[in-house]
Amino acid sequence: MLIQPGALLAEINSPDDLKKLDQTQLVQVCDELRQFIVDNVSVYGGHFGASLGVVELTVALHYIFNTPEDQIVWDVGHQAYGHKVLTGRREVFHTNRLYKGMSGFPKRKESEFDTFGVGHSSTSISAALGMAVANKYKDDKRQHIAVIGDGAMTGGLAFEGMNHAGVSDTNMIIILNDNCMSIDPNVGALKDYLTDVTTSHTYNKMREDVWKMLSKLSTFGKSAQEIISKVEHSMKGMLLKQSNLFESLNLRYFGPVDGHDVNHLAHVLSDLKDIPGPKILHCVTVKGKGYKPAEEGNATKWHAPGKFDKVTGEVFKKVHDKPQPPKYQEVFGHTIVELAEKNEKIMGITPAMPSGSSMNIMMKAMPDRAIDVGIAEQHAVTFSAGLATQGLVPFCNIYSTFMQRAFDQVIHDVCIQDLPVNFCLDRAGFAGADGPTHHGAYDIAYMRCIPNMIVAAPMNEGELRDMMYTAQLPREGQAFTIRYPRGQGVMPEWRTEMKKMAIGTGRKISDGEDLAILTIGHIGNYAIEAKEQLAEMGINPAHYDMRFVKPLDEELLHDIFRNFKKVITVEDGCLMGGFGSAVLEFMSENGYSAQVKRLGIPDAIIEHGTQEQLHDECNFGVSGIIETSKALLGAKVKAEISNN
Amino acid sequence: MLIQPGALLAEINSPDDLKKLDQTQLVQVCDELRQFIVDNVSVYGGHFGASLGVVELTVALHYIFNTPEDQIVWDVGHQAYGHKVLTGRREVFHTNRLYKGMSGFPKRKESEFDTFGVGHSSTSISAALGMAVANKYKDDKRQHIAVIGDGAMTGGLAFEGMNHAGVSDTNMIIILNDNCMSIDPNVGALKDYLTDVTTSHTYNKMREDVWKMLSKLSTFGKSAQEIISKVEHSMKGMLLKQSNLFESLNLRYFGPVDGHDVNHLAHVLSDLKDIPGPKILHCVTVKGKGYKPAEEGNATKWHAPGKFDKVTGEVFKKVHDKPQPPKYQEVFGHTIVELAEKNEKIMGITPAMPSGSSMNIMMKAMPDRAIDVGIAEQHAVTFSAGLATQGLVPFCNIYSTFMQRAFDQVIHDVCIQDLPVNFCLDRAGFAGADGPTHHGAYDIAYMRCIPNMIVAAPMNEGELRDMMYTAQLPREGQAFTIRYPRGQGVMPEWRTEMKKMAIGTGRKISDGEDLAILTIGHIGNYAIEAKEQLAEMGINPAHYDMRFVKPLDEELLHDIFRNFKKVITVEDGCLMGGFGSAVLEFMSENGYSAQVKRLGIPDAIIEHGTQEQLHDECNFGVSGIIETSKALLGAKVKAEISNN
Repeated sequence: MLIQPGALLAEINSPDDLKKLDQTQLVQVCDELRQFIVDNVSVYGGHFGASLGVVELTVALHYIFNTPEDQIVWDVGHQAYGHKVLTGRREVFHTNRLYKGMSGFPKRKESEFDTFGVGHSSTSISAALGMAVANKYKDDKRQHIAVIGDGAMTGGLAFEGMNHAGVSDTNMIIILNDNCMSIDPNVGALKDYLTDVTTSHTYNKMREDVWKMLSKLSTFGKSAQEIISKVEHSMKGMLLKQSNLFESLNLRYFGPVDGHDVNHLAHVLSDLKDIPGPKILHCVTVKGKGYKPAEEGNATKWHAPGKFDKVTGEVFKKVHDKPQPPKYQEVFGHTIVELAEKNEKIMGITPAMPSGSSMNIMMKAMPDRAIDVGIAEQHAVTFSAGLATQGLVPFCNIYSTFMQRAFDQVIHDVCIQDLPVNFCLDRAGFAGADGPTHHGAYDIAYMRCIPNMIVAAPMNEGELRDMMYTAQLPREGQAFTIRYPRGQGVMPEWRTEMKKMAIGTGRKISDGEDLAILTIGHIGNYAIEAKEQLAEMGINPAHYDMRFVKPLDEELLHDIFRNFKKVITVEDGCLMGGFGSAVLEFMSENGYSAQVKRLGIPDAIIEHGTQEQLHDECNFGVSGIIETSKALLGAKVKAEISNN
Repeated sequence: MLIQPGALLAEINSPDDLKKLDQTQLVQVCDELRQFIVDNVSVYGGHFGASLGVVELTVALHYIFNTPEDQIVWDVGHQAYGHKVLTGRREVFHTNRLYKGMSGFPKRKESEFDTFGVGHSSTSISAALGMAVANKYKDDKRQHIAVIGDGAMTGGLAFEGMNHAGVSDTNMIIILNDNCMSIDPNVGALKDYLTDVTTSHTYNKMREDVWKMLSKLSTFGKSAQEIISKVEHSMKGMLLKQSNLFESLNLRYFGPVDGHDVNHLAHVLSDLKDIPGPKILHCVTVKGKGYKPAEEGNATKWHAPGKFDKVTGEVFKKVHDKPQPPKYQEVFGHTIVELAEKNEKIMGITPAMPSGSSMNIMMKAMPDRAIDVGIAEQHAVTFSAGLATQGLVPFCNIYSTFMQRAFDQVIHDVCIQDLPVNFCLDRAGFAGADGPTHHGAYDIAYMRCIPNMIVAAPMNEGELRDMMYTAQLPREGQAFTIRYPRGQGVMPEWRTEMKKMAIGTGRKISDGEDLAILTIGHIGNYAIEAKEQLAEMGINPAHYDMRFVKPLDEELLHDIFRNFKKVITVEDGCLMGGFGSAVLEFMSENGYSAQVKRLGIPDAIIEHGTQEQLHDECNFGVSGIIETSKALLGAKVKAEISNN
């Protein structure tokens, strides 16, 4: 069932169509656009609250600016659904986030209106500034607009970009979409500041009050007026130049304006077009605006609710006959609390992902020991290092893809100093529908090259618990990385008794003779399934769950390479420099020769889809392991067939 | 010749000794400390300007605070010489930055007074906040002080730290050491802001003026007074709450104060100790303070001048009989200008290292096409990506070790979008005296795992020029990384005619028979020397300069592995996941077996020393290559000997 757009929206196939409308029609366009998003997301799923919040802004931007000549950069990108609908993708919108379908984020390859691909936060100012500087150099009169949320504004990159923008001599416009919310409620001093600025009791009111009172004083005669004029002049100097965080950085500040008044927005944007210099428009919006349950309910829940009944606001949940395994995220969340109850040194740190990582369980249970530092991965790591210097045991939980942003802090602040910080890399491997910006593809490669680093990956819930238990035991130094995927494990009865796992030890899952399959992490469950199917073909591989990428279990590897001449390694991570390469290094150092086939993420950007679809695409799902096994054993398989 | 300290300094072996002095003696301590640093650095070399600038601050901090119970974190760390002298390292100070000697940066293993190791900038606030939060949790009453320069303040991590500090409910003190200077003159809007704040013509003066004028108005009678009192009240509210960048982030702001008045500093610090909540003291200092040539001369030159005549200020330069090869840095600097003269699309970007990278040559020649974005590596990369989307050809020059800080931007903003950005990774491999925080050890591993990335390393000046020439030619996508070491190349006649280098091609340097030596980058020159010495022992290795880590020259590798059963790979980078591992991956994929010995940086933190010392320590200097060759050829070597 294709969702039908409203009458006006049905005719808008590009911003040019939008521009043909009279400004009085924009409110209706906004209503229809909002309805179209609600209708689609309720049926097909996807991000929700962020795009509803910027419907008016989106319409106003495309109405006023000459896109794609003028260039809009949408920070994070999950606010760009309306933008996609207005820029020629209405009819493919129902394929949003599906395999081979439309991306859930702006993407250069998808449309010339998507000027810069995004997924991670806080990049828009730097990217738009690069465009603006380039076009200034080329003497091209385009406009450049970065639309950035208040949450993304806390990321250090945004600050770096503003610091440069303020001296850049470009006309770029930064639109601060302030909804006091990233995915989880925004934290940090900046949030308080923005709230202060937007609430009438402080800054703006005071500014007005002062002007008013001074004007009263002018009734006291001419010499008073002169003094007042000087005071006003000085005060304006102060207020304009330095009264505002953004003006401190030489960005002209406008606002705050109501982000849901499309006509006023169009008016303001039209004015801003002609004001030279770098500037910021503070635009106050409501996440989920226009959809009651989202406006009034839990904004975190409505960030990406899944499919729901658009009338009642009820989010559909799958119903299962029997107990399901928990998500790895839930196991993390409950286990850290369990451990922290016994070990008072444990602290939990998350950069703005309390609900996604389930750190919120600890934040609720032990509010003084679990800290959300906001979108600030670098700070999360260095802050954790600071905690560790004082003898505490930090568990810093960061999505694998976001840990890329704190790579230097892991090296420079943690590992060079040999501090025992624990990293839990959530959503390692393919992220699924979020696509390439969110895949945790590189962490094995980029973590294992750092000295003083342990890298482990659990194959199931029990192993995750044992690894976490082990990571919180006292140790001399070394950081400890535990990577696990998004989604469910395999153990409905997951509350196992925790025990110490010897660091750098793998385990044999099953004996075999024809070849050895070495897996790391959850993906090992594919090998179990593959083995069952291979058995039916008369192939009997041994299976090892290596558990540690670093240090490798050398004893186990010696055993394997003494006994097998054909080996498959399987990892949900990049092949270049990954787990399989570590195995090759071991072989080389120890003089083993064996035919090794490494399965994992190839050296390419893999698009979005379900995790299973992507595993299959990259040939390391169940069938990939089976086919690879058969190919490796070509001779034997043929012999078996001829024997039958 | 050991430098003799002054009379007071000679008795100070720890801050306890300092505390025994009367406050009236602090000026003399400062003079002696400053003299001791001048005497030492002029004879032994090292960082200079930064430490001279904080002599008074250092003395005041250790005089007032109860170190090491109270914890000081020195940002970047090259400002910490005075701190080292006062905390028990006066007598080893002459070993500063020498192999096995004192580190040039704070280092936890060296002293309990060094609370947090540093080298990269902008980490201090996050680290000190971690300590402060930990000690608050432990109910420990320590003080925590982060000392951070205005340059480091532009790094996004510092902003992330402040955003958290502002809501942290700790008593931490941030001391902003404002000298308008990181290594090169500071850039960006923040600098202008700080200058505004500290210069009398704006903020502070205006504030005073307004107060004064308002007080004049009060002569107009009682009702005027009432109004004025209201105005004052409102204005104070405004000014106190929001008039200041730092106060916007909920940090109480104090200052600016004269950072060279030790008694006043002691007084202010003593007051700050008792003021609760997170706060910032803005302290204005002069880099190189107290040493005339440094104060008056080029501050960049006096950042780390090398040895010099302390009387005349003349910096000693080595005199050579014959023409010397240039530094790779100089080759980069001149070559980018040469290329940019012909290709108008080229832009140069450096994050605060114009002189170190020699980007200053282009900044001088083409000021609108070479941009210093300040200490902001993340921004430098995303900004470059923005330039590339507009068809420009950015050369983003970042030290290898600092590129760690922009890893996510390389993946997310450049490579996922397949943008043709060029990265020049300066100081790749061992940095030398700066030590582990500055070694460019990991770049091959962390860059080659990214799709859409070319990774190359020149063996000499000519190859660097050809690689740069090739990188600026139009190509469809792919980022292009060129890594090269700190220091001199090998070609006194380096201005070669530039030609296109086929991407992914290596070259044979010399034929051989016993084994093949595969090198990447400058380190290949060691292999040439080793080969000469091996020849005298009757060993004749072939030598290949692979030039590209990615894509590998597969044709050449097929040729090598068809002909050689013993292979050595040599790289000035980490062995885990590095160039040698890429070769192992090739072998595995193509079914080659050969005995491969990979030489490079082992999986350990390697301390400081000269590059040669460190290469030898890690066994990949000339002698390491010779010994490895002999060991690989054990049988043959023995046979040759018995034949003689």
